[in-house]
Amino acid sequence: MSKKSDTSKEVVRIPVQELHNILTSILLKNGFTSQKADTCAKIFVQNTAEGSTTHGVNRFPRFIRSVMKKRIDVLAEPEFKRAIGCIEQWDGHLGPGPLNALYCTNRAMEIALSNGIGCVGLANTNHWMRGGYYARIAAAKGYIFIGWTNTIALMPAWGAKDKRLGNNPLVVGIPFDPTPLVLDMAMSQFSYGSLEKKVQDGEKLPLPGGYTADGELTNDPSEILSSGRPLPMGYWKGSGLALFLDILAVALSGGSSTQEISTRKAEYGVSQIFMTIPAASLNAKNNLSEMVRLIIDDVKQSIPIDQKSTIRYPGENVPRIRTENEKLGVPVESAIWTEIKKM
Amino acid sequence: MSKKSDTSKEVVRIPVQELHNILTSILLKNGFTSQKADTCAKIFVQNTAEGSTTHGVNRFPRFIRSVMKKRIDVLAEPEFKRAIGCIEQWDGHLGPGPLNALYCTNRAMEIALSNGIGCVGLANTNHWMRGGYYARIAAAKGYIFIGWTNTIALMPAWGAKDKRLGNNPLVVGIPFDPTPLVLDMAMSQFSYGSLEKKVQDGEKLPLPGGYTADGELTNDPSEILSSGRPLPMGYWKGSGLALFLDILAVALSGGSSTQEISTRKAEYGVSQIFMTIPAASLNAKNNLSEMVRLIIDDVKQSIPIDQKSTIRYPGENVPRIRTENEKLGVPVESAIWTEIKKM
Repeated sequence: MSKKSDTSKEVVRIPVQELHNILTSILLKNGFTSQKADTCAKIFVQNTAEGSTTHGVNRFPRFIRSVMKKRIDVLAEPEFKRAIGCIEQWDGHLGPGPLNALYCTNRAMEIALSNGIGCVGLANTNHWMRGGYYARIAAAKGYIFIGWTNTIALMPAWGAKDKRLGNNPLVVGIPFDPTPLVLDMAMSQFSYGSLEKKVQDGEKLPLPGGYTADGELTNDPSEILSSGRPLPMGYWKGSGLALFLDILAVALSGGSSTQEISTRKAEYGVSQIFMTIPAASLNAKNNLSEMVRLIIDDVKQSIPIDQKSTIRYPGENVPRIRTENEKLGVPVESAIWTEIKKM
Repeated sequence: MSKKSDTSKEVVRIPVQELHNILTSILLKNGFTSQKADTCAKIFVQNTAEGSTTHGVNRFPRFIRSVMKKRIDVLAEPEFKRAIGCIEQWDGHLGPGPLNALYCTNRAMEIALSNGIGCVGLANTNHWMRGGYYARIAAAKGYIFIGWTNTIALMPAWGAKDKRLGNNPLVVGIPFDPTPLVLDMAMSQFSYGSLEKKVQDGEKLPLPGGYTADGELTNDPSEILSSGRPLPMGYWKGSGLALFLDILAVALSGGSSTQEISTRKAEYGVSQIFMTIPAASLNAKNNLSEMVRLIIDDVKQSIPIDQKSTIRYPGENVPRIRTENEKLGVPVESAIWTEIKKM
């Protein structure tokens, strides 16, 4: 984890097409085929345009360094290993995480069409950047999406000091109009990406997010990055769920666990799960989208705790953010933009 | 929610067989067939013997009152409605929650055998008491179990004052020796059962678990029961996950949402999901149970934060608690025991 504290908060607005072009050209220089470079750039640009800067352009330089260190094999294709009913196990052969993840999302939808549920367990893959991207792809085609990934050890188990658990993000997508419901959450209360962003921005966390080196709860992101002890969401609950998501990822994919990944010098060869269900097939007693609307309408009628608060569903803000960034240009930190232009 | 504060902490130890016999006789008096009374009593006794008193005998009087009020139909059987590949939708016809849940757990295992995954969506059922019971049944037979239930509105959404979300417990079981890994967690940081238990025991919560009527975070369980504002686990994360678990429960079962359930005078007719995967079929690159052991051994080697702390996996303590209670008798609060003996 890099611990930047000297970088500027200054942001430049880059037109979507310009950002896409420069990322594509860097990917081409690093051995991607033109089709794969285009798809991969699109994922980085869209994540950034939709507000996930920490899992968009901010990670792009690190992604390219992993390619240069041969931890990512730009030419690798996912390979089918075996099917167990509606579960398929694939080997990602250390290919680019976003491309492997997109492939397996599409494959899970194919399996689901004739099985009710389609599940792909992907071994030996790499960081998918933002899991919500794949949930949106599936939801836009009318599929419920449930996916998760394991990671290198990033978080102590509840009651422990040393990192032995991944933060293992869990992603759920549900088709909805005008934009899907997408929950995309790491098992730590705050992701490392958001801790680093707060440090860059010189801000504290709104709530305690981990421990100091002395074991005191703190909302200072630098202290948490130093101690390596982010707080699991919900204390023992997030710790337990992180453990189970790792075991399930390993069980369903046949891939590496957080413990195995953590014996390597860096995070590569992670395990991911992609589960999809065609929503239209479910034939609920009421039309499903009407039922979801009733639920969302009810929750949105909640009494807010104060005038500042609005009750939103996860993913609700994405179209507004995307539209704004498509119009004004995608916000990229100056330091990141300078780094990218030199690549 | 009952708000007992006058009850005694006094506990009596009741032999397992005696407890089973009295619960069975009460169920028979209330119209259960002898086989169903036996199974239902067994679930209540085992939950209690395994330490889940709040979802064992403590709920038994409330369960019987629901039978008397005809919210639970003691003779109802779950009815198959439709299959969508490996998903089956069943109607619980407001039968006893534990019996419906056990039936659907077994059915999900049958479906999984030929499909890789078996998923039963159960509509119109009742409180399953302790979801971990069904996870243990499945794990003991070698199945991974993932299940959840929705509930009546018990918790405000993140940023809201009024209750519009269920606490929708999520349960995951993984076969393991000597005892399965079982995660059984409500989406509130503390369940209502544990809040009530703390009030009875005159104790505070170890961490803030909700809000006072004035909107301040508190660790006083009485204040939280009064305000009706328990804290979602992980703040916005538990709020989001509770919302999604409700929608998924409705989508997969065709049953009622938290919003619909909350229009009724009491909690009945909830929706539940039972998903199972035969672990042996997964054919992971290493034997799965060896892989789980490596993961658990690694996590248990964590450095504890202090000498009091030990790193445990969810479910690890259950055999020790059960063995002790089978030997010494199952601990039942005197007030509950008096109430049960009069039924």
